[in-house]
Amino acid sequence: MGKFLSVFSVRNMLVLSLALNVSLFLRVLVLHDSQDGSFIGLRFKKQNRQQEVTSPVSHSSSSSSSSSLTMAQGDEDRIINLDHGDPTMYENYWQKKGDETTIVIPGWQFISYFSDATNLCWFLEPEFAKQIVRLHKVVGNAVTENRYIVVGTGSTQLYQAALYALSPNTEAEPISVVSAAPFYSSYPLITDCLKSGLYKWAGDARSFSKKGPYIELVTSPNNPDGFVRHSVVNRSEGILIHDLAYYWPQYTPISSPANYDLMLFTVSKSTGHAGMRIGWALVKDKEVAKKMTKYIEINTIGVSKDSQLRAAKVLKVISDSCERSNIEQGDSFFEFSYRLMAKRWKQLRQAVHQSGLFSVPDFPPQSCKFLRCVFEPQPAFAWLKCEGEIEDCESFLRGKKILTRGGKHFGFSPKYVRISMLDRDKNYDTFVERMSTIRL
Amino acid sequence: MGKFLSVFSVRNMLVLSLALNVSLFLRVLVLHDSQDGSFIGLRFKKQNRQQEVTSPVSHSSSSSSSSSLTMAQGDEDRIINLDHGDPTMYENYWQKKGDETTIVIPGWQFISYFSDATNLCWFLEPEFAKQIVRLHKVVGNAVTENRYIVVGTGSTQLYQAALYALSPNTEAEPISVVSAAPFYSSYPLITDCLKSGLYKWAGDARSFSKKGPYIELVTSPNNPDGFVRHSVVNRSEGILIHDLAYYWPQYTPISSPANYDLMLFTVSKSTGHAGMRIGWALVKDKEVAKKMTKYIEINTIGVSKDSQLRAAKVLKVISDSCERSNIEQGDSFFEFSYRLMAKRWKQLRQAVHQSGLFSVPDFPPQSCKFLRCVFEPQPAFAWLKCEGEIEDCESFLRGKKILTRGGKHFGFSPKYVRISMLDRDKNYDTFVERMSTIRL
Repeated sequence: MGKFLSVFSVRNMLVLSLALNVSLFLRVLVLHDSQDGSFIGLRFKKQNRQQEVTSPVSHSSSSSSSSSLTMAQGDEDRIINLDHGDPTMYENYWQKKGDETTIVIPGWQFISYFSDATNLCWFLEPEFAKQIVRLHKVVGNAVTENRYIVVGTGSTQLYQAALYALSPNTEAEPISVVSAAPFYSSYPLITDCLKSGLYKWAGDARSFSKKGPYIELVTSPNNPDGFVRHSVVNRSEGILIHDLAYYWPQYTPISSPANYDLMLFTVSKSTGHAGMRIGWALVKDKEVAKKMTKYIEINTIGVSKDSQLRAAKVLKVISDSCERSNIEQGDSFFEFSYRLMAKRWKQLRQAVHQSGLFSVPDFPPQSCKFLRCVFEPQPAFAWLKCEGEIEDCESFLRGKKILTRGGKHFGFSPKYVRISMLDRDKNYDTFVERMSTIRL
Repeated sequence: MGKFLSVFSVRNMLVLSLALNVSLFLRVLVLHDSQDGSFIGLRFKKQNRQQEVTSPVSHSSSSSSSSSLTMAQGDEDRIINLDHGDPTMYENYWQKKGDETTIVIPGWQFISYFSDATNLCWFLEPEFAKQIVRLHKVVGNAVTENRYIVVGTGSTQLYQAALYALSPNTEAEPISVVSAAPFYSSYPLITDCLKSGLYKWAGDARSFSKKGPYIELVTSPNNPDGFVRHSVVNRSEGILIHDLAYYWPQYTPISSPANYDLMLFTVSKSTGHAGMRIGWALVKDKEVAKKMTKYIEINTIGVSKDSQLRAAKVLKVISDSCERSNIEQGDSFFEFSYRLMAKRWKQLRQAVHQSGLFSVPDFPPQSCKFLRCVFEPQPAFAWLKCEGEIEDCESFLRGKKILTRGGKHFGFSPKYVRISMLDRDKNYDTFVERMSTIRL
């Protein structure tokens, strides 16, 4: 009875906080800029920025300061923005965890630039390194033995560090960087942003035919389409970067520990803490790890200690939840998020079926060694196709006030769009409801 | 009597914690690589990195895990590393402040990529923006009215964001970036790191004669020599970036609020929290602020929320301490740090005088509107010259186990070295003691 009451009160709290959160989300009334294929496709309603910056504004993420504006809108009129993959879906889980993941940092600690001057990556917090190794061991998704860990300000910075480290810097012209389409829309932008003489985006790996050395990016499971990927160029002069941001059991069956030369991970998509801006690379070659560290030193003189400490705590709580789950049959982080993703994909497939205008990929079921069951991948993004005569799926959905990212940004057909599956419940539910009723 | 006792016990605690801190510092036994002019000129004793990364290591900055190793060394044999400007000097002050600057972040908060989607800089925490404006107003060192605030992963990232935003991107060749020598040694490295087609390091502004647009970096007070700086090229096609990292009252008299188009600041050198990796830019032009924000979006998808929140708290406590000091004649952060810097400069000048081999710059005294007194600048770095026949000052001091950064890294004569004035007391005291006894 006591347990029931405590569960009940936690649920009440959740409903209340959810309502508050929703009000904040509703502040983000955005219009999509279809010319911009970068991470954020936002334009802002408010014009007077000066006022915004100089006036006191609450920083609480459950702020309801503009709820009066947004609550007047009904769900049917509301713009649903699923363009970027903001992983706010995970908020509920962490709220339920209460103080377990709360971090306390005294003002005088972690002042120095250095975390551990004896480590190759001198700005890597030892506790974070420890928890990375532990989590990969618990989940079984990556080999950490004989690997150097390099921490980055998200895996975005680590991708650039890898390009810097892997570019020969001896050639007359920049090395080609390729990835099989559809590829993550930010890759070309990041690669060519500064018109580097070291490396240059060369597009779809499948049509790449230039001789000489090249870098191939392999994202597996792939962003945007969720499929398991392998390198496609397969020439002796190829250097591979494996972006494994989504190789976690809530998204895809864990078949075996990944064992590549250079693997990128991020907390944004594994635990949901995008605001931390923390990623890590597992690197086999010492010189490559050194050069990556050097890039991050030049680019930002290291990585926030505060976020590394917070990330260490979150990773620890996840590993603990997994180990407890084995003994007590309880709810581990990955079991919770796996079930939520399964529910969402079921909802989406039903909506797509009801509408009759769209399709989403089918994935072959596979055995997951971590969850010890067979399931179909349930990616963090839906790679939705507009069937029939709709040629520009992004525009079509924008007309229905659903903001997505069109296929052309991923080097693919505009009949496709990428849709984030990681938004808050309220937003996701409204989205699938609206999808199910869309007719031509 | 009660007050006396409490002061006594705080001092006891300080001595104890200082002893613990020193033991950590002593872990950092480094050899200097004179070929490397970048931020960190470190080589590591420990060879087996694998073990380091995979074994559990305490992350406490007061760890004494290797004190047995280092305590065996006497002060006379100890390597004093003052190559990089790690601002650990400030630890004492923040420790004394106790819980006032402690930050608590619940695991479920600040998960989103977004801080305030209505702001031009959508990843800027509103509370941090508020405290930046307040602190500049309290200190009177920069105009914030009609400015956009862009937050960065340290001012290093903001410098790159500024280059990205200010480069024309329409010219056939990259825009020249110049700064008057001696200039901050990292500028050339950062600028040319990726061989950008947008901008290119063109060296000493004083000898710059190329026609057409250019970017001039003005660091004031200057790193390494501490002098107040103004632009030197002065041509109509020049675009200026003002790096004001050291324009704070502990280092230099605050004559008036800086009022430039693009000003860079950082917590590393103002509050001492280098580990946070937080800086900010005050930007007059909206399009420039937008492009800087875009660069940081592409480079790292925003800036750690955790560190922004912590920085906000630290800035708030500093402003509070200044306002309280006005009323109660107490010890504000800047009064404390001003006095410590004054003491250190006095010690250094005495040591230099006693040795007879060196010189340091003399600065004209100026009136400080914030501290309401007249004083000589007391920079964060000493720009020391080896007089007489010593041609390579860095090598000479390395022979005395004092690691500094040689003049050539700053585009200047090797007779000069830059010495950090911001190290912990114990290390600084040993340094000046050793300096005073150096003979040819």
